Amino acid sequence: MDDTSAVSGTASAIRLNAAGADSVEGLEIPALMADLGRRARRAARRLATATAAEKEAALRAMAARIRARAGIILAANEQDLAEARGRGQTAAFLDRLTLDPQRLEDIAAAVESIAALPDPVGRVLASFERPNGLLIERVATPLGVVGVVFESRPNVTADAGALCLKAGNAAILRTGSESFRTSRAIADAMGEGLAEAGLPADAVRLVPTRDRSAVGAMLAGLDGNIDVIVPRGGKSLVARVQAEARVPVFAHLEGICHVFVHGRADLAMAQRIVLNAKMRRTGICGSAETLLVDRACAGIHLKPLVTMLLDAGCAVRGDAATQAADGRVTPATEEDWRTEYLDAVISVRVVDGLDEAIEHIETFGSHHTDSIVTEDAAAAERFLAEVDSAIVLHNASTQFADGGEFGFGAEIGIATGRMHARGPVGVEQLTSFKYRIRGTGQTRP
Amino acid sequence: MDDTSAVSGTASAIRLNAAGADSVEGLEIPALMADLGRRARRAARRLATATAAEKEAALRAMAARIRARAGIILAANEQDLAEARGRGQTAAFLDRLTLDPQRLEDIAAAVESIAALPDPVGRVLASFERPNGLLIERVATPLGVVGVVFESRPNVTADAGALCLKAGNAAILRTGSESFRTSRAIADAMGEGLAEAGLPADAVRLVPTRDRSAVGAMLAGLDGNIDVIVPRGGKSLVARVQAEARVPVFAHLEGICHVFVHGRADLAMAQRIVLNAKMRRTGICGSAETLLVDRACAGIHLKPLVTMLLDAGCAVRGDAATQAADGRVTPATEEDWRTEYLDAVISVRVVDGLDEAIEHIETFGSHHTDSIVTEDAAAAERFLAEVDSAIVLHNASTQFADGGEFGFGAEIGIATGRMHARGPVGVEQLTSFKYRIRGTGQTRP
Repeated sequence: MDDTSAVSGTASAIRLNAAGADSVEGLEIPALMADLGRRARRAARRLATATAAEKEAALRAMAARIRARAGIILAANEQDLAEARGRGQTAAFLDRLTLDPQRLEDIAAAVESIAALPDPVGRVLASFERPNGLLIERVATPLGVVGVVFESRPNVTADAGALCLKAGNAAILRTGSESFRTSRAIADAMGEGLAEAGLPADAVRLVPTRDRSAVGAMLAGLDGNIDVIVPRGGKSLVARVQAEARVPVFAHLEGICHVFVHGRADLAMAQRIVLNAKMRRTGICGSAETLLVDRACAGIHLKPLVTMLLDAGCAVRGDAATQAADGRVTPATEEDWRTEYLDAVISVRVVDGLDEAIEHIETFGSHHTDSIVTEDAAAAERFLAEVDSAIVLHNASTQFADGGEFGFGAEIGIATGRMHARGPVGVEQLTSFKYRIRGTGQTRP
Repeated sequence: MDDTSAVSGTASAIRLNAAGADSVEGLEIPALMADLGRRARRAARRLATATAAEKEAALRAMAARIRARAGIILAANEQDLAEARGRGQTAAFLDRLTLDPQRLEDIAAAVESIAALPDPVGRVLASFERPNGLLIERVATPLGVVGVVFESRPNVTADAGALCLKAGNAAILRTGSESFRTSRAIADAMGEGLAEAGLPADAVRLVPTRDRSAVGAMLAGLDGNIDVIVPRGGKSLVARVQAEARVPVFAHLEGICHVFVHGRADLAMAQRIVLNAKMRRTGICGSAETLLVDRACAGIHLKPLVTMLLDAGCAVRGDAATQAADGRVTPATEEDWRTEYLDAVISVRVVDGLDEAIEHIETFGSHHTDSIVTEDAAAAERFLAEVDSAIVLHNASTQFADGGEFGFGAEIGIATGRMHARGPVGVEQLTSFKYRIRGTGQTRP
């Protein structure tokens, strides 16, 4: 494999024209995407035998190149911002898209922190000796090629590419069109870092076109050259990926997270946890959307909980009992139990004990993150066992649903599926495994 | 949930008419399959909290019911056999389909051996305490609902159903139409065993129609009520499932397994391993299909290896060097390197050392099982690291590719995919996991 020629081949095939629109010379989109897939697979084969030191060096070189290219990256970001402003994007959108020297430094530092993580590849996950003397080991290997489809946060280019690389995977990154120039400038810097460390630049590639058909090609799997797709973005993006992908997807569609205040909850603790779960940050997937209060303690706990939320600026939509607790509560409909507000809004319901709480969560929840507050150990154990969510907590805030809070260093996303990865997807869950067997001439009888 | 009514509901809806053809009263196939999916999901929710003792008791009750219903099952098998004979099926096919009292006893005993396995659900896979005092555990949970699509080996009904149940999963089993009556009689016995142990009979259900559209419905995932599909059968079945399934698949399309006799191989060991890998059983996925011989030892090792295979009744198709070693060798074409013979045929090629051997395996292999024979530890380590197959061996036969040989007790199949399961899929790999977090009131800063 000649990585140098592969790099320059791509570089010469793709240019940005003066108007800022991308043009891909000489290749139709299907051929371009197929080529990207083949290059990624070839890079993945090389990465599969890269040492921990090689990968760490490449990640540190990437961070250095991002810093060294700050001027180019920030200029590309200015162009993206100018175009987005021209299209009348919202202030919140523009803020997500904006880079400045500090944010760019944060991106470089995040890549360095991924460099410093333990290598997840080569871990011996299980090891056993058979009666015939065969030594069998289950050992972590890379997954292969990861496709990441995201919206317009430029940092995802670096974060996702670095996480995939740490796990020995090649990454094909598709950014939202609004951050195309910024993401490409970052990806180019990462490619330089890879080449500097002697690894193929094709290991981290941004899809070099804004043409929307490129996403369809990725979801179809690029002729078997994408092993898993990770969508990063809003519900409509995730829904499209889940509906159309012909390859496995690590994702959560939404986080309809619950806090259940059990009859034997400590009120002060329940107040702290509910306020944090809802209001610390309302726009993240681990924020609580529904509060369930046990009828056994509702007479004492419901009013202080609801009043606290209202006083903190949270709109409360409740059932009849909740409405009776505070005049500011508006009625909840069944639709509220199914709604991820991602805002300072919460739905509140009184339930008849643990069974009805679990039934509510299983019926209306999204299997993401759910918490029980109680001093009753048996009730807590039942909740932890019976609530079928990626993350279940006892006496803690749902906002801990985060790879960093788990100590994973970083996460590429949170998965609510049951296959392969579940919960925060860090570098370990971006690996597969194989069986390595050492014998001394054994044959099977 | 009322399991008793669910059981009798299904039983009364489905009858076998006097001519032996199945009829499903009052339900069109799509509605029937959707109902089957909903019942399985409901059963899976109950199984998720079943204790190890409950599952073990159910499995033992299933085995007892299979024994008790031997007369009914064997009579059903006679009907299946009569129909298959009438259709002019081959002797080999009829043998696979045939049950007798001993084979039925083996089926019951296999269910009991699965009963005796350790419970894979609830295992703590990882456990760590965070600086804030949160105790985080990753704990094994069932996958959910497993769809198994198989051909006409009646034992798969019991084996697959029992393995799924042991891992807390509901199973929807689709048998080949030739073994429909036999499989249904076995599945009915298993349903009785489940009910006797207080678990829902819907936990193991045979698709109650021979209509081929039922397979399509399963591959589409039954409205989200199938989590994974396991095909058990020939290449055409697996290929169809892999091409059409909209849910994850645990499978291998074929086992193009290699033995590489390295330049520093011990000849006697190489002969033992090659003979066993090819000839012990030629029809299993772990049998060797291609022998690669290092040019460094071909002058000494090639002729004895080839002559041994020919003398053992194995046809040899070889490159020029191999043809020169024995006049009985016929020429190999490139197609031979891609062929899974599943017969007493082997392709043989001389390669230039370890690199060319690995390149050949990566180019033509199926990522199933590959072995190196060598006394050179460094060469062996490179082979084990660089060959990207589910199972890689040093100085041992490829025929060890089997869950029983791994000590897994039993396997539902061998997977060559990289997601979730790889290699022999035993009960542990039929589980997922979740994060269970215990706090003392922690909130996120």
